[in-house]
Amino acid sequence: MAEIAHMIDSEIFMAFSTYATIVTLKMMLLGPMTSYFRFKNKVFANMEDTFGGTTEQRKKMIRVDPDVERVRRCHQNDLENIIPFVVVGLLYALTGPDLSSALLHFRLFVGSRCIHTLAYVMPLPQPSRALSWVVGMITTFSMAYRVLTTALYL
Amino acid sequence: MAEIAHMIDSEIFMAFSTYATIVTLKMMLLGPMTSYFRFKNKVFANMEDTFGGTTEQRKKMIRVDPDVERVRRCHQNDLENIIPFVVVGLLYALTGPDLSSALLHFRLFVGSRCIHTLAYVMPLPQPSRALSWVVGMITTFSMAYRVLTTALYL
Amino acid sequence: MAEIAHMIDSEIFMAFSTYATIVTLKMMLLGPMTSYFRFKNKVFANMEDTFGGTTEQRKKMIRVDPDVERVRRCHQNDLENIIPFVVVGLLYALTGPDLSSALLHFRLFVGSRCIHTLAYVMPLPQPSRALSWVVGMITTFSMAYRVLTTALYL
Repeated sequence: MAEIAHMIDSEIFMAFSTYATIVTLKMMLLGPMTSYFRFKNKVFANMEDTFGGTTEQRKKMIRVDPDVERVRRCHQNDLENIIPFVVVGLLYALTGPDLSSALLHFRLFVGSRCIHTLAYVMPLPQPSRALSWVVGMITTFSMAYRVLTTALYL
Repeated sequence: MAEIAHMIDSEIFMAFSTYATIVTLKMMLLGPMTSYFRFKNKVFANMEDTFGGTTEQRKKMIRVDPDVERVRRCHQNDLENIIPFVVVGLLYALTGPDLSSALLHFRLFVGSRCIHTLAYVMPLPQPSRALSWVVGMITTFSMAYRVLTTALYL
Repeated sequence: MAEIAHMIDSEIFMAFSTYATIVTLKMMLLGPMTSYFRFKNKVFANMEDTFGGTTEQRKKMIRVDPDVERVRRCHQNDLENIIPFVVVGLLYALTGPDLSSALLHFRLFVGSRCIHTLAYVMPLPQPSRALSWVVGMITTFSMAYRVLTTALYL
């Protein structure tokens, strides 16, 4: 493991903070986007969220909508991929990698996830979404490899 | 970024540890609450989880139940909001903010999520749940703003 | 809270890095496993993911499949349990626990989650999955207890 001086004052940790925050914000924005489609298409998951009309009309608003489900699947995929990136990326940043190598990992991951979101929500034809997902996975695996080879303690 | 001395021995990091742990425990408790409603209403997602009665009766236990789904939606919303808080909050705590400012953020977030859970599970009439969700989002955005303005390194 | 020297160079933090990375990789592998069952059973969630055959045949591939849903439920349970472990475990590692005690917690958790995945995907008869889930929960609660008793700052 790296010296502690590598951690906070280092450009690597600042780079990690920047990219981790940006990609986390990107993930969070899918929450309001889900709400946007719920209001636009008048589709809700809870009776207390419906509004306007009679009770009968409001009951019909409790249904599944393709637009809403698409954004929710994208959000779920973000949870499944971005959170592992943050966990492994933090540990990776603490192993004291080269700055250029770290930046390459962080930029590849954040770029691939932005493309993934565009490809999912638009949607773009495959394999754009599949490829962006694979690039993100490989980036995280590569960082995990360095963590395990640098700091293995079982 | 702050000096390393700010990190571990500081009251800010202890405050972060305390609030992050509390809100993570709150999130985890929705797991047992889901199990509680599954057993109470005899509703399961897997055939091997059912018990009692004939195979026919057990097959009928594999269905969707409003109580269980409500708790699960609340749990999902927690994952989508509390985990970003923990990630951004950790980086925020490392930027060396004022203790009073940090405590305000942490308390607002944890308070808003406790109200959110109550509003979802009871359920309380809207806009109680929507407002508590928005307060949590704004708190996390505010911390992300400080991280990006203090430690930007692209 | 522990001295900073306890954090990076210490065996506890290396042990945490190792086990957190391993269990995060285990969680990530459920993504490709979901894809595997989607291709094997020709079941997709998005129209643009389907392939082969006429439009009518491709529309029929948009459905819910028991194998795919089982892996997805396992993945969701991992998100709900492994992420809290990583958050609480990181803070726990910073409280400077005994190495043997920390290793016990990390090994118990990672072992229990590996058994949980096996029990879910095979599936094994209950209560194997329920027990492995409970062991993981108790391990995380035990670490949270130490964090809150060592570093409480409200």
